[in-house]
Amino acid sequence: MTFAKSRESLGSEIESLLGEDIVLRPDKSSFEDFKADLGDFASEPAVVVQPKTADHVSKVLKYANDRKIPVVARGAGTSLTGATSTFGGIVIDFSKYMNRILSVDTTNWYAHCEAGVVLDDLKEELKKKGFFFPPDPASAPWCTIGGIISENSGGMRTFRYGTVRNWVLALNVVFADGTKAKLGEPLPKNRVGYDLVQLVCGSEGTLALVTDAWLKITPTPEEEAGTPVKKFMVFFSSWEDAVNSIVGIRSSRLIPNLLEFMGAEALQSVDDSFEIGIPVHEATLFMEASDELIPKILAVCKSNGSVDNYIAKDEKDGERLYSARALLHLGVKSLDTGVYAEDAVVPVDRLADYVTFVKQTAKKYGVKIPLAGHAGDGNVHPSIVYHKESKESRESADLAFADIIRYAVSLGGSVTGEHGIGKQKLNFARDQLMERNGPKVINLMQEIKKLWDPNNILNPGKFVVEDSGEKS
Amino acid sequence: MTFAKSRESLGSEIESLLGEDIVLRPDKSSFEDFKADLGDFASEPAVVVQPKTADHVSKVLKYANDRKIPVVARGAGTSLTGATSTFGGIVIDFSKYMNRILSVDTTNWYAHCEAGVVLDDLKEELKKKGFFFPPDPASAPWCTIGGIISENSGGMRTFRYGTVRNWVLALNVVFADGTKAKLGEPLPKNRVGYDLVQLVCGSEGTLALVTDAWLKITPTPEEEAGTPVKKFMVFFSSWEDAVNSIVGIRSSRLIPNLLEFMGAEALQSVDDSFEIGIPVHEATLFMEASDELIPKILAVCKSNGSVDNYIAKDEKDGERLYSARALLHLGVKSLDTGVYAEDAVVPVDRLADYVTFVKQTAKKYGVKIPLAGHAGDGNVHPSIVYHKESKESRESADLAFADIIRYAVSLGGSVTGEHGIGKQKLNFARDQLMERNGPKVINLMQEIKKLWDPNNILNPGKFVVEDSGEKS
Repeated sequence: MTFAKSRESLGSEIESLLGEDIVLRPDKSSFEDFKADLGDFASEPAVVVQPKTADHVSKVLKYANDRKIPVVARGAGTSLTGATSTFGGIVIDFSKYMNRILSVDTTNWYAHCEAGVVLDDLKEELKKKGFFFPPDPASAPWCTIGGIISENSGGMRTFRYGTVRNWVLALNVVFADGTKAKLGEPLPKNRVGYDLVQLVCGSEGTLALVTDAWLKITPTPEEEAGTPVKKFMVFFSSWEDAVNSIVGIRSSRLIPNLLEFMGAEALQSVDDSFEIGIPVHEATLFMEASDELIPKILAVCKSNGSVDNYIAKDEKDGERLYSARALLHLGVKSLDTGVYAEDAVVPVDRLADYVTFVKQTAKKYGVKIPLAGHAGDGNVHPSIVYHKESKESRESADLAFADIIRYAVSLGGSVTGEHGIGKQKLNFARDQLMERNGPKVINLMQEIKKLWDPNNILNPGKFVVEDSGEKS
Repeated sequence: MTFAKSRESLGSEIESLLGEDIVLRPDKSSFEDFKADLGDFASEPAVVVQPKTADHVSKVLKYANDRKIPVVARGAGTSLTGATSTFGGIVIDFSKYMNRILSVDTTNWYAHCEAGVVLDDLKEELKKKGFFFPPDPASAPWCTIGGIISENSGGMRTFRYGTVRNWVLALNVVFADGTKAKLGEPLPKNRVGYDLVQLVCGSEGTLALVTDAWLKITPTPEEEAGTPVKKFMVFFSSWEDAVNSIVGIRSSRLIPNLLEFMGAEALQSVDDSFEIGIPVHEATLFMEASDELIPKILAVCKSNGSVDNYIAKDEKDGERLYSARALLHLGVKSLDTGVYAEDAVVPVDRLADYVTFVKQTAKKYGVKIPLAGHAGDGNVHPSIVYHKESKESRESADLAFADIIRYAVSLGGSVTGEHGIGKQKLNFARDQLMERNGPKVINLMQEIKKLWDPNNILNPGKFVVEDSGEKS
């Protein structure tokens, strides 16, 4: 890192460039909010900038690029991988001012939002107009549009609706050198030029910073189906039966709107923390489907050994079931002082092998690993719980984390389904790319990074390895 | 173009490299098939290679790259933009041998296909297993998987299901230098690395050649809904009423599986050529929806002045309606000796302005411009019919073509929704990118091209402008 300015002079220079009101220096108490993320990755920015316009972003980037100072974009800081951490760089916080929903177009079916809009705020605004934006990471009450685009977030509805990238039409971005540009068009079809929008989606702030985005919206599942849609749970006395049901649902070509798995330990931790009142079985599937599909889905589960089920009585009751799943990470976090959210993804027909391995790994290292997640797309999250204050416990958790990732990759899976790479999985990602895609592909990625950000100021040291890709 | 080898010696060198059986030289009668595409763009390749394996493709590319000889990939040649034409280069024809469906995975929901598989062959194979691959360009009976990926094809179901890029999970490609690599993973979620798969989708063979692909598949619309799904037509005595109905359907948050517009002239031409027996009204909407949604959609159309409707009696009858739309390009082609398929896309709420302008333009230049296409996503194709043998007629058609494109862009639309750029729209695309996205974006696209294909051998002179992007 070529950054060698004192944080004092950096702060005053940026203040004189942009005005005091949008610069947060370490002496302010709210600066503390930027020292960690939801994954407990520490951060020590030199200064936090809270821009009000794309021009502010452009000025900061030009300043930083000329001086080779790292710049890290941040929304709510709900990254679980250290994607927003920095030591000595400039954090650009989009959440403070750039948080307006600029328009909702109910004929052309898009919403135009600034990067700092909170996902649930968008969802609520759309709901008033009868529309729906499907991606729903569990962090939806806090996470921002800029964050979900940079992370190409998934969530519970990916099984049917795809990840965030499927819902992004166009972006306004600022490049590393401060140039502002629109990528793509807010049209459902556009074949002009290489798809730079998709290149930016999921790039973790390493190519350009998104200031605002045109997102595709769609009618609610209920309106789409033209029939009532309900949330429901199916209970199992063995996780094997639950996993076989998932495979059965897919092989039977049934497509619920969401298809989630929750193990006993995980569900118990949520119920202990939030008193949601869901009976704890060895394994639970949480789903949403139309009245037409529910009996067919229940029949598949029954034939795979389900012991009971519960269909939400009304929308409010459905939200209660949903919250049990959405609050899982927080529930699990309460089990001890530290937790690694594992995010490997495996082919759906290898889920049983994967779950078996996770359970063996928990036993091997003597750590708790509650399981829950997006079973419909093979992305079940093991949460590796550890005791932060104990070196031994941390080491066991590290070993378990690595073993599970490597096993998932050996099954034909991937290091990360939705949480991304950040700092946390840089080496694992490199190994996967080397093995599956080869050095030429790694090299292309590195060269793309250089092309977009020649001075390597945008979130350096994250997402893409800077070395040759060969194992050290 | 640095190509300066005689086609005679080029042919024999490639024959000795790969074996005679996979090389087609100009003296063979089947060579004639490669001298034009569906859009009547002429081509004069030096040699056609018909590889059996990715290794063959790799060898040809390495050979061509070392000698800077242009290479153009070709499936069925149904491009409408000159994307497969070349003068003096090597055409790689994937359709002859590399046309196997390698696997259909009904648990993980993907099909793994070689590039030369015909789209309808895949659809038929999937249908046997109860699955469905939604993208359906009208060329589906002939076009190939490699072609639809390179062109990011759309078709009638884009309105609901998106374009081909939404259905591509992973690709095996050969880079310009002959290196083979897999891009992406056949998983519904994968957050490792920049999304190079999406960069290749829609790149018209200018970055890498696709040898085989993992495509996402899904249950049929009927199975997805759990209720019967029917095709139907709604008839209007004015196109304004039809266009208002489209806007009404969208504003009412109704989402048919397809939503197509057909003007009287276009429909008449199909009926004259293929005797499908559909009554010709001033404007017709062709749709597919579940039993639940059909009455709601019909009500919106009625309130916008529809005069009649026809619901398909059974699947076979539905296919008849579908074929009326799918055969439109061929119907319109029969009207004279030449036709330009215009492919501009406009925001849905500007469709009325667009159609008005097209009708004025037809009058202004004294040319026939039947209208039909993907109204649900603002991608109605005007077909500019002309008399190839008359210079005057060709010139009028050229002017009409340009006027319509420029008007669409001025409405916030795009030069091309699905047919792509090829040779045909290079300057229009450049102008659009300059105006909307700026020189930095054009430069990034050019640099990406250089990074992937430093010797500029992959479909040179197509898709991406090679100059500075400034208007000459």
